Amino acid sequence: MKVFVLSALVAASLMAGTLQTDAKKAGLKPIPASVAALNKLTSNPKNPTTAAKVELGKMLYMDPRLSKSGLISCNSCHNVGLGGSDGMSSAVGHKWTLNPHGLSSPTVYNAVFYSQQFWDGRSPHLEDQAQGPIQAGPEMAAPKEHVTAVVNSIPQYVAMFQKAYGKDVKITFEKVADTIAVFERTLVTPSRYDDFLNGNKNALTTPEKKGLKTFIDKGCATCHNDIALGGTMQAFNVTGQYKHMNVGDFKGDKNGMVRVPTLRNITKTSPYFHNGQIATLGEAIKEMGRIQLGATLNDDETASIETFLKALDGRMPNITYPMFPTSNATTPKVDVN
Amino acid sequence: MKVFVLSALVAASLMAGTLQTDAKKAGLKPIPASVAALNKLTSNPKNPTTAAKVELGKMLYMDPRLSKSGLISCNSCHNVGLGGSDGMSSAVGHKWTLNPHGLSSPTVYNAVFYSQQFWDGRSPHLEDQAQGPIQAGPEMAAPKEHVTAVVNSIPQYVAMFQKAYGKDVKITFEKVADTIAVFERTLVTPSRYDDFLNGNKNALTTPEKKGLKTFIDKGCATCHNDIALGGTMQAFNVTGQYKHMNVGDFKGDKNGMVRVPTLRNITKTSPYFHNGQIATLGEAIKEMGRIQLGATLNDDETASIETFLKALDGRMPNITYPMFPTSNATTPKVDVN
Repeated sequence: MKVFVLSALVAASLMAGTLQTDAKKAGLKPIPASVAALNKLTSNPKNPTTAAKVELGKMLYMDPRLSKSGLISCNSCHNVGLGGSDGMSSAVGHKWTLNPHGLSSPTVYNAVFYSQQFWDGRSPHLEDQAQGPIQAGPEMAAPKEHVTAVVNSIPQYVAMFQKAYGKDVKITFEKVADTIAVFERTLVTPSRYDDFLNGNKNALTTPEKKGLKTFIDKGCATCHNDIALGGTMQAFNVTGQYKHMNVGDFKGDKNGMVRVPTLRNITKTSPYFHNGQIATLGEAIKEMGRIQLGATLNDDETASIETFLKALDGRMPNITYPMFPTSNATTPKVDVN
Repeated sequence: MKVFVLSALVAASLMAGTLQTDAKKAGLKPIPASVAALNKLTSNPKNPTTAAKVELGKMLYMDPRLSKSGLISCNSCHNVGLGGSDGMSSAVGHKWTLNPHGLSSPTVYNAVFYSQQFWDGRSPHLEDQAQGPIQAGPEMAAPKEHVTAVVNSIPQYVAMFQKAYGKDVKITFEKVADTIAVFERTLVTPSRYDDFLNGNKNALTTPEKKGLKTFIDKGCATCHNDIALGGTMQAFNVTGQYKHMNVGDFKGDKNGMVRVPTLRNITKTSPYFHNGQIATLGEAIKEMGRIQLGATLNDDETASIETFLKALDGRMPNITYPMFPTSNATTPKVDVN
């Protein structure tokens, strides 16, 4: 009888309608199902998304010639085939330099939904963010002038910029970054979780619904909220109690806090945390419970949350490998030093 | 009158039928126009090409997790978007190591038509070749055991191998290399030059036909012959007269000779020669005339040959970027040291 009552209670709380309402109350939002709504949400009003810009942005994102060495592209660390990251605990850049701050590469997928970019949240959007790693010494190490010289030296790139922005376009470093951002804005991965929140009551299995409920009830959605289940706030005090986890000189934002990462495709982006110090999802969930919620999550609760998180694996975009336009005698020489 | 006679003579020698015969006599062969003939020519009888193997081979070719560091894939140096090479004079591998022999990365495109792989021609085919760079310390630096451990740790890779080779497949290092080779065997780029040799008399422009004639008449096809316009023999004595061009310790084959590279897509694979010491196609043509043919090619002849070589730019394959299967706790850790 007791078992029956408990089952009935659990079943009631897992009624799809109730759970969808609970999720909404907890600040969770789906990727819109309608293409028009999604485009409106992800397109930059100041630089609207067009097919010509996306194609060009994809090329620039994947072209290693934008780096000083000619060896590193945005895609090297934010590999669209590896969940938008690189599987490293610490990013590796120009001259095989480990990220001096001990930081791992955040995924590019669904980063368009973030209100703050970089682990310290210092950048407001992808257009601004894209300028950073290209120039950073331990990443692509390319001065602005190198990037614009490379792109302007290649007639097909110039033609593509003209097609995207009009004949009179001036190809500045900022224009290159803006165009990369247009491509990145298309990298969204709707999942069964979104189908569920968008009204398909059967899109999640019962264990996944249970996991979502546990996720909400335990308070995970306090930080991992909105569309990306992250990316909207800072949490996790790196300079305080959990200093021992740091491996570089990363101090977080002005309050010592780290930007909350997305949980979408989290199965694909180990190792976890800003410093890549946690290897498995189970460990990450327990550690977050302990650090952020002051709660000891038992094995069942952890497994339940993990089951839910796996349902966040999204439908990945179909990306055709770009055939880059050819360099010529006026293209700046690569420099590996 | 003189001009008229000369024009008439040139015109006669450029009669498509005559030129096609001349090309054939010079040992030049087209990529077959028929898909069946091409497949027969490029498929390995011991490991026939199938769609399942090609898809898996593409993933393995592009997966950086096969390297010790987790950062370098076959595609890093043989970038299918950069003409199958990397634009570097000397390849850069594990720990940012420049190729100790001062060698550049040969293109992967049309390498299936070579009878000898590597710059010293020491390897007979792609299956054998693919084993080299994965293990080489200054390239991907991965012991065989690392590669098999990575692949066997990922259930989706195991499933793909089973789909490609049957349930009882044993995923050895050699099997991984064989499968990469199956993908590479599909990387062929038919061009207007092939259309011409295959019977379309109008596939080349008159200047391109003139260039082909110059190419044959000057003797370029002596070494740059067969389907790849290269890849069948050794020439260019590195330890002899042109020692000054070497930058590493590369000594060539047992006779000090270097394998003749393909001229297909040559516009995309600068810098030129085994050591990447020549920046432009014009320089490369003149230098080859001087070194190999003992001839001084004047500017007109050089430009004419260059015009022909540009017609070797092929139709590139459409390659979908692979979404790699996810690593897990049993996947060997990356090691950047």
